[in-house]
Amino acid sequence: MNGAESLVHTLLNNGIDTVFANPGTSEMHFVAALDRIPGMHCVLCLDEGVVTGAADAYWRVAGKPAATLLHCGPGLANGLSNLHNAMRARSGIVNIVGDQATYHRPLDAPLTADTAGWARPVSGFVRAAATAARVGADAAAAIEAARTYPGQIATLILPADTAWDDGGIPGVAAAPAAPPAVNAKAIETAANLLRSGEPVALFLGAHALFEAAMLDAYRIAEHTGAKLRALVAPARIERGRGRVPVMRVPYPIDQALESLAGLKHLILVGAVEPVAFFAYPNKPGHLRPEDCSVHVLARPDEDAPAALAALAEALGAPKISAPDPGPRPAPATGKITPEKFAQSLAALMPEHAIITDEAISFGRGFFPHTFAAPKHDWMQLTGGAIGDGMPMATGAAVAAPGRRVIALQADGSAMYTLAALWTQAREKLNVTTIILSNRKYAILLGELANVGANPGRTALSMMDLSNPDLDWTKLANGMGVEAARAENLDELNDLLAASIARAGPFLIELMI
Amino acid sequence: MNGAESLVHTLLNNGIDTVFANPGTSEMHFVAALDRIPGMHCVLCLDEGVVTGAADAYWRVAGKPAATLLHCGPGLANGLSNLHNAMRARSGIVNIVGDQATYHRPLDAPLTADTAGWARPVSGFVRAAATAARVGADAAAAIEAARTYPGQIATLILPADTAWDDGGIPGVAAAPAAPPAVNAKAIETAANLLRSGEPVALFLGAHALFEAAMLDAYRIAEHTGAKLRALVAPARIERGRGRVPVMRVPYPIDQALESLAGLKHLILVGAVEPVAFFAYPNKPGHLRPEDCSVHVLARPDEDAPAALAALAEALGAPKISAPDPGPRPAPATGKITPEKFAQSLAALMPEHAIITDEAISFGRGFFPHTFAAPKHDWMQLTGGAIGDGMPMATGAAVAAPGRRVIALQADGSAMYTLAALWTQAREKLNVTTIILSNRKYAILLGELANVGANPGRTALSMMDLSNPDLDWTKLANGMGVEAARAENLDELNDLLAASIARAGPFLIELMI
Repeated sequence: MNGAESLVHTLLNNGIDTVFANPGTSEMHFVAALDRIPGMHCVLCLDEGVVTGAADAYWRVAGKPAATLLHCGPGLANGLSNLHNAMRARSGIVNIVGDQATYHRPLDAPLTADTAGWARPVSGFVRAAATAARVGADAAAAIEAARTYPGQIATLILPADTAWDDGGIPGVAAAPAAPPAVNAKAIETAANLLRSGEPVALFLGAHALFEAAMLDAYRIAEHTGAKLRALVAPARIERGRGRVPVMRVPYPIDQALESLAGLKHLILVGAVEPVAFFAYPNKPGHLRPEDCSVHVLARPDEDAPAALAALAEALGAPKISAPDPGPRPAPATGKITPEKFAQSLAALMPEHAIITDEAISFGRGFFPHTFAAPKHDWMQLTGGAIGDGMPMATGAAVAAPGRRVIALQADGSAMYTLAALWTQAREKLNVTTIILSNRKYAILLGELANVGANPGRTALSMMDLSNPDLDWTKLANGMGVEAARAENLDELNDLLAASIARAGPFLIELMI
Repeated sequence: MNGAESLVHTLLNNGIDTVFANPGTSEMHFVAALDRIPGMHCVLCLDEGVVTGAADAYWRVAGKPAATLLHCGPGLANGLSNLHNAMRARSGIVNIVGDQATYHRPLDAPLTADTAGWARPVSGFVRAAATAARVGADAAAAIEAARTYPGQIATLILPADTAWDDGGIPGVAAAPAAPPAVNAKAIETAANLLRSGEPVALFLGAHALFEAAMLDAYRIAEHTGAKLRALVAPARIERGRGRVPVMRVPYPIDQALESLAGLKHLILVGAVEPVAFFAYPNKPGHLRPEDCSVHVLARPDEDAPAALAALAEALGAPKISAPDPGPRPAPATGKITPEKFAQSLAALMPEHAIITDEAISFGRGFFPHTFAAPKHDWMQLTGGAIGDGMPMATGAAVAAPGRRVIALQADGSAMYTLAALWTQAREKLNVTTIILSNRKYAILLGELANVGANPGRTALSMMDLSNPDLDWTKLANGMGVEAARAENLDELNDLLAASIARAGPFLIELMI
């Protein structure tokens, strides 16, 4: 057994059966091993940003790691920005990077790069296998690291000779440990704050945004008058009828400050303290009011759902149901607005849809209009590195083949990783992509105002995607994905319903 | 004057008048400054790989740096693989990365990343401006670093507050210094080797591949019987009728070894010692024969052309002309082969064309068939990080608006940075892109054999781009570039001639 075979056995023996790959020369033995060892679903992606974004979403949906397969330092580099998003999502990924043979690296061949150095800032674990005999044990350690609660990126560098040499020994990873419990003192402190009568909010992130935990948070809120707020960009939030509606802290700085105004205490539950995405002249960096104190009920690496349940019990909060969000809306018609778009989405999305949201500026108002939709998951761009939306949709669909994925996708961001569409066609994934085509970097027009800059002709041209116009139906067709354009909500409704009713990917270019 | 304005003034005052940009929030003041200060050509690119690949080619053609404008660590990360290629090309780039405000960085907002850490492996210079008053001086230092012979990447990190704060002072960069001369001892040693009668080759890289230097190398070769060899992947080589035909060391390992077989001495001229691109089981890493000694006439950072001239004089080699490459071929007809394709290219390329070559496997045989073409420059993928071809074509066309750029582009590699086409359309660049569409990662099929792996169904599917087929005419049209498909050489000849005769970009999908 060579090292590559021991790696494939180690992955499969420990429940990792999906690999998103963009291989090169140094990964040929890994690829060849997949022929000899059945059971691995190997998904080819045409650029590495698709690989890493898909692996991120796979974790968010499946709750277990996928592996990646990348080629040397530059292949890793192409995937770093979506690994950054995955790190901010606290996703577990076994990030495999094939590399120069151990004895060839000192020769500094043209493709040689600082693979470990580039991996380190996004990885909780980085290790380069030294020999074929070590690959299995190193892979097992990487799997353990990736599954360490709440999840992290574990980069395993696989020099070519450690893949092709004989002597491979499959490794065994320890089962994932339960998350550390929150200590009683933190619960007691939170309970006292909630009983104080002062304005308090629970600030929810990570697993506190899943159905059962949010219901406990809602019990607490109803019992004490506390507010509930979610991260600006959660990795996954469970939403829809029968679940608790929670608003995210908005992205625009003034709205973000407003959403936390008047609070005296902010209790973090699976989240870190909210800060502005960027600094703006003469605006604060922390989003809480200056006189608001911050307390930790559960760190992101602690058992936030259990902490919320214990806190609800400590407060004697009665068990209740999620509030009724009112009737499900009918599809909206007429002129396209963000609110009406969200209404159509709520009207037409199927039960258990997965929404991937890289809608950027157009998407800020979607949440209130989709509370009455059927149960669904909503996944956000966690790290702000655009180009994650279509890869996320791809990985989510691979993780949950029975569910419809709806990708809400700004056009500017879509251009970073559009090759994701090809993988969706190849794998016949049930993804409906809606390109929100405004032909500009609309977010930057707002940001120019926020930083006090006054745009002229050159600045405006840097935000303009209309010269020439991008034609998303042609781009999709060019990668084997059927597509159509919608100029109004009626056309959108028809295309959305039709795409949900059929198998495979479809792209709607919505002219907004 | 704010810091951003001082940066723009510093660039312009020091001759840097072109910036390839993919800006975000933290770069808004830089962009706004371009409105107030005339003279900067700001080229918008829709992903950062296009930005950095274009800046690399701009240097190779113009011989002076362009600036980039990237957004935070993840924006830099997206551009790293083409910065890797630029580093291997020894290209000078003023690589500007906007980033979190100095006082906001400690808050670890979602987009915060290790910008400097990611930049360091590809940069000869990394500095983050600390205050607006320092931006101009830091920019001047970056410009000096970028222009240090033979060229290097100088990364200037620009925290948002250093851009928007007042107090900017334009900086002054020292003029570029001449390259260090080669010492007399190295010339004497080389002369003695060349007089020894033993088999010797001059191994040429960097500026030794420009017209006058190659003519001196040819004088030496004709006088002494030495062979001439070039790097496997030169940054730029000056070719065509009236110049010296030099063969590159081939990429495939066996052919590479063969090309240097029998040599007793290898003399490096502006190049480092040739090594295999990758290790292969039971093959050597160094390409020279085991009993071949290696000598340095000129390091890449020394004046290789002057060294060749001095060496020719020391040897008393008479001045001669470049050899006659024979008649210019007529366009080839019939079935497409690499040789016939190159023949058509030689027949139809205009004088002073710039060829960007990311043809990968199909392109290996092009050189011998294009020696009789008119004078042209040929630029290669220097660092092996694919996705450089179309960005290079873009940057070359910006640097030399009066010349036709012909991009020889493998289809698999083209998928990494296809957004380059949009910038070509926007800037109306004179680029003819020829997609060599074989719908597979053909190079990897060869590499599988080289590493001794035996592909089965899964492995073969990882090299297959035909499910679904990519349609490059649609992809080009979707980005505003006119395109057509050629199924044979006659169609290619017609389309190539027509595209050269008209202004602006055109894409030919050649079905090989």
